[in-house]
Amino acid sequence: MLKDSSRNKAYRQAIFDNVDQIKGRVVLDVGAGTGILSVYCAQAGAARVYAVEASNVFKIAQEIVKENHLDQIVQVINSRIEDAILPEKVDIIVSEWMGFYLLHEAMLDSIITARDKFLKPGGLIFPESATLYSAPCSVPSMFEFWHDVDGVSMGRFGARLRSEAAHRPITAPVAPEDVLADPEIVVWIDLREVTSEDVSSVKIRHVAVANRPGKYQGICLWFTCTFPSFSAEPVSLSTAPEEPETHWKQTTIVLPNELQVEERAPIAYELTLARSSESARRYNIEVAMLDPDEVEHPEYCNCHMTKCILVRAMLEKYEMESLPK
Amino acid sequence: MLKDSSRNKAYRQAIFDNVDQIKGRVVLDVGAGTGILSVYCAQAGAARVYAVEASNVFKIAQEIVKENHLDQIVQVINSRIEDAILPEKVDIIVSEWMGFYLLHEAMLDSIITARDKFLKPGGLIFPESATLYSAPCSVPSMFEFWHDVDGVSMGRFGARLRSEAAHRPITAPVAPEDVLADPEIVVWIDLREVTSEDVSSVKIRHVAVANRPGKYQGICLWFTCTFPSFSAEPVSLSTAPEEPETHWKQTTIVLPNELQVEERAPIAYELTLARSSESARRYNIEVAMLDPDEVEHPEYCNCHMTKCILVRAMLEKYEMESLPK
Repeated sequence: MLKDSSRNKAYRQAIFDNVDQIKGRVVLDVGAGTGILSVYCAQAGAARVYAVEASNVFKIAQEIVKENHLDQIVQVINSRIEDAILPEKVDIIVSEWMGFYLLHEAMLDSIITARDKFLKPGGLIFPESATLYSAPCSVPSMFEFWHDVDGVSMGRFGARLRSEAAHRPITAPVAPEDVLADPEIVVWIDLREVTSEDVSSVKIRHVAVANRPGKYQGICLWFTCTFPSFSAEPVSLSTAPEEPETHWKQTTIVLPNELQVEERAPIAYELTLARSSESARRYNIEVAMLDPDEVEHPEYCNCHMTKCILVRAMLEKYEMESLPK
Repeated sequence: MLKDSSRNKAYRQAIFDNVDQIKGRVVLDVGAGTGILSVYCAQAGAARVYAVEASNVFKIAQEIVKENHLDQIVQVINSRIEDAILPEKVDIIVSEWMGFYLLHEAMLDSIITARDKFLKPGGLIFPESATLYSAPCSVPSMFEFWHDVDGVSMGRFGARLRSEAAHRPITAPVAPEDVLADPEIVVWIDLREVTSEDVSSVKIRHVAVANRPGKYQGICLWFTCTFPSFSAEPVSLSTAPEEPETHWKQTTIVLPNELQVEERAPIAYELTLARSSESARRYNIEVAMLDPDEVEHPEYCNCHMTKCILVRAMLEKYEMESLPK
């Protein structure tokens, strides 16, 4: 993960853009790992940094803090955040808590706990918000690839792999040109306010509109995080297909069968993410393909179905008429 | 592994270049996996192909053979080769048996068994020979990288990783520009003759000569395989750093400490690969750095040490004198 330079650079820039907020303040790093974010905060002038790490990696964090001559500022604490005791409240929480498709095995609950236990009112959280997106996509590695594997047809094997993948999303880069429609927001999380219940189950019904002809073979998920900002353009860390690859890549739920779609075809789906009953840090994901005839389209839907063309024409006419003469 | 197109293409080309040898013949595919090599042989005109696969993957092979309408030719047999019973001897053995650095967890013993049990005298083996190479190299991901991880010094952590890697070679691509000297052959295996004992332990002592200044940080290993050829240029499958990446990548034994070397500096090392006492399919690798002053250099060594410069001058003089006037 340390080799995920996009990630490190986003945090580093967000922290250094906020030197005025961090200088002389007290910081808590939740799930500090090797302590790289704690070091950034100390370098940015924090008065004290509590780096809380539950696993044995805390020893590496101690070593790295010392090697960077910051052991007077960064205190590494080997504890779960739920059990941690700090001598004071903190001005700022930093954490790299995001899992695959944001929520999978994520430490979001730990951040919520840390915030409620340790953050001063009005304190800052890095990152401050996170957004999960979904979009229909092609997944050539699970479909076309198996039609001709260097001269051998393996279509049925590919179908078997797909039926397994339907129960277990795949983590792999999605090429930007394989995304078939604009993304929809699945959930927006404001770290300052979110509760654990808010994210125990998330469901959207959406009618995406294909922006080109292609094979609809799956739904891919990615997320962005945005950091607090008081002066510069806010830093955001995006794991979108068109951004440089991160260790999160993208997550794809593969459909059992593909569907050829034309440009402006409506693609209706329901996406559900629900906490697993076995582990609160795991989610079960389900995608249901819906009949575009039977679901309500967004008001400004630009799909090629007659009802949407009519609604659009009416709306345009109305807008024209209401323009000042 | 099916996605390793360099591998598939090399086998495919080697098989199709030898259509004259394969047409009407009986083939044995050892450790057939998904059966892709069996399908190639059947496509090339083999009369019968026995695809022997010990694991449950044999079911996938059966499916793929059927999907390609070759089930009249390819017979998938779910068995270890040691226990397999075939109704006849075979003209050709094909197998993709190579492990990381050729020997690690490789199926070489199975090929030897198959050859001794089932191959007709003078029969062909695809591939026919394999060569393992070693060369001193730089390993920036294990050294320089840790000096500055996006602004944080992690040198001691890097040193810890290296001391772990010293006992466990790393499998990762080596950039061609990180190879410091010409490779040396560690072992050459002629599949037609090799015995299991021949490869139970392999040791070389070598004085490599740096072909540029650089940091000597490890010894990397790779291999090539060569296929039988009667007409075209023989096909070879190379996993060298300068070749397109394969799933074998390269294997590197990382040194605990780096050594800056100048151009033409001698790099003396001893490399030992010995079968593990716990598992015959595993090897223990050891690299010993030797003092170039204390080991014998090759006759035509072009290193910058005085004795080699003198020997070279003498040899050149002798060659000049022995030229016809």
